[in-house]
Amino acid sequence: MKISDLQTPALILDQEKVTRNTAAMTARLAAKGVKLRPHLKTAKSIDVARLALQGNFGGVTVSTLKEGAYFLEHGIPDIVYAVCFEPNKLDPAADLTERGADLKIIIDSVDVARAITGHGGAFKVLIEIDCGEHRTGTPPNDAELLEIADALASGGNGQLVGVLTHSGHSYQCRSAAEIRQVAKDERNAVKLAASRLRAAGHACDIVSVGSTPTAVFGEDFDGVTEVRPGVYVFYDIFQAGLGVCHIDDVAVSVLASVISHQPAFNRLLVDAGGLALSKDRSTAALETDQGYGLVCDAETGHPIEGLIVGGVYQEHGQVTLPDTARLEQFPVGSRVRILPNHSCMTAAAYDSYNVVKGENVIAEWKRCNGW
Amino acid sequence: MKISDLQTPALILDQEKVTRNTAAMTARLAAKGVKLRPHLKTAKSIDVARLALQGNFGGVTVSTLKEGAYFLEHGIPDIVYAVCFEPNKLDPAADLTERGADLKIIIDSVDVARAITGHGGAFKVLIEIDCGEHRTGTPPNDAELLEIADALASGGNGQLVGVLTHSGHSYQCRSAAEIRQVAKDERNAVKLAASRLRAAGHACDIVSVGSTPTAVFGEDFDGVTEVRPGVYVFYDIFQAGLGVCHIDDVAVSVLASVISHQPAFNRLLVDAGGLALSKDRSTAALETDQGYGLVCDAETGHPIEGLIVGGVYQEHGQVTLPDTARLEQFPVGSRVRILPNHSCMTAAAYDSYNVVKGENVIAEWKRCNGW
Repeated sequence: MKISDLQTPALILDQEKVTRNTAAMTARLAAKGVKLRPHLKTAKSIDVARLALQGNFGGVTVSTLKEGAYFLEHGIPDIVYAVCFEPNKLDPAADLTERGADLKIIIDSVDVARAITGHGGAFKVLIEIDCGEHRTGTPPNDAELLEIADALASGGNGQLVGVLTHSGHSYQCRSAAEIRQVAKDERNAVKLAASRLRAAGHACDIVSVGSTPTAVFGEDFDGVTEVRPGVYVFYDIFQAGLGVCHIDDVAVSVLASVISHQPAFNRLLVDAGGLALSKDRSTAALETDQGYGLVCDAETGHPIEGLIVGGVYQEHGQVTLPDTARLEQFPVGSRVRILPNHSCMTAAAYDSYNVVKGENVIAEWKRCNGW
Repeated sequence: MKISDLQTPALILDQEKVTRNTAAMTARLAAKGVKLRPHLKTAKSIDVARLALQGNFGGVTVSTLKEGAYFLEHGIPDIVYAVCFEPNKLDPAADLTERGADLKIIIDSVDVARAITGHGGAFKVLIEIDCGEHRTGTPPNDAELLEIADALASGGNGQLVGVLTHSGHSYQCRSAAEIRQVAKDERNAVKLAASRLRAAGHACDIVSVGSTPTAVFGEDFDGVTEVRPGVYVFYDIFQAGLGVCHIDDVAVSVLASVISHQPAFNRLLVDAGGLALSKDRSTAALETDQGYGLVCDAETGHPIEGLIVGGVYQEHGQVTLPDTARLEQFPVGSRVRILPNHSCMTAAAYDSYNVVKGENVIAEWKRCNGW
């Protein structure tokens, strides 16, 4: 099948780019002497996981317990569920472990540590550290860190296995130098937390950091055992705008058809709107705002100078042209590809990827969406 | 099963509210003497369709051909596919018709009219009219209107059956008076288009308008045969902000668990983020910006004064409290419900609705997502 045979809108995954992106991160972290535990929240696909795990130790990161069950069923037992845990999820997590998962959960409070010790099930636990993002996690120098560890050790089957942090604030950086600084802060935060835990007699085998920008720009992972980037498998135009990748590295795009011309407004409409692209507007925070996505040639995937999706409705995307004459280049029924602001959000609207090599669709790879 | 037995995040549909909303719109349009053809792009569910069709003639509106196939399989043949049509979709549309659908498609260009006449399949066609939204459609007084009709009549099996418009610009209104004016403009646009077509000897049996605000506030549907509101089945906090419904009418919500406290920032985190809520920020344009959703009591569904989801990450939602003392009211593991900005976008992240009556989950209703 050719790309031109697909109905639109459709999610396209460029096989060469995803292979290149995953291999490059594997090589980079191997050279730094630190393990890569890819965060599969972006891809949610066993086929992409296999690429990301090539040359690595085999552990993965997930953002939902459903992903955990899916990857376990596909032969991957070593799983970190990297969203702060809460007591209602103890039963399903225990169930995953009983089915053979080597599941690690993350917590940031004494209350949840107590719920774990009171549950009866066996849980491997990482304490989440706040390294400056201020989303979740306990500060590395806070008394709470040792209180959580002590609560876990006070009874039951909770086993402290390490610390984990996420430097999501690297997305606020606007230069490589700033990202390098966040990478240092991230590393130093978990190193401090790990040393305090060890000094107090607690085990801390896993010391985990992760975000794509800090994985790409981090210089020194001394004291860190694992890195968990996610979006690097596909990248997106926000990451390109940050300088973390090139536009040519963006591996996912949405194939769309032109459905209407509005010459009075120099506009064309495509059949990819808020559902097909997501309403993510990450690039609005960057120097170059790319609207709801960057319009590219359907065959080559190369950006078309100056064309973005400026507005979306549920099933309509609106593209304003520099001049009306150019409408002729995009007759109704012609195709474009659109590169997303945020691959994780856009891909989530689709059940599967149309994997392409050149103009050929060579495979369909399923995703594990939902909760 | 009780609501408290659900894993989070989960999509909740209040049976009493969806029943009340659908019955009210049916009664309102019956009193106005105009047919209701509900737009099922919001619900994408045969169970909701059955409620919306009670007391109505049985025709529906869809936003994807996949919805068309789904509703046909569930016994609903009379379908308007209300997204501007393009030639690549002729084959799947012809296939739907062959399988028994009484499918109507919409077009706004001579080029697509010619593609239809050249295809060989039988297509019922509505011409889309721009009544002021300037998204798609041809202006009602434009020469193009008759050119499209003439092109359709020039050969092949395309059959003009009417005109259709969408007053999406009613979402820009900020008062009932403004919405009433848009409703008038909407009606007048299709009346003008229909009269021009008829005067030129073309059939124009269907004269279709539709948006939830104009369906709720429109005073006079004279000359209109069908109305196609969609979001009214569930409503949302944007529609409530517009004054089109009350907050208490919003029938869908997302059940979420508290997963972390950040007392230094007066914040709690819930396990519903950008994927579970969508990144729709419709209320940002209103007087009261509700962030990514309005936080409600999990049991009663009533809003909790002053609490909104102020920020989202992929799986995290961030709620800032007026004061730290209130964190105690929301221990980790406790639940809230979140009312969405835009029901169509939020519901699309889920495969099914957990239908609730009071505290009981009484059914699971499936959705037809994707393309």
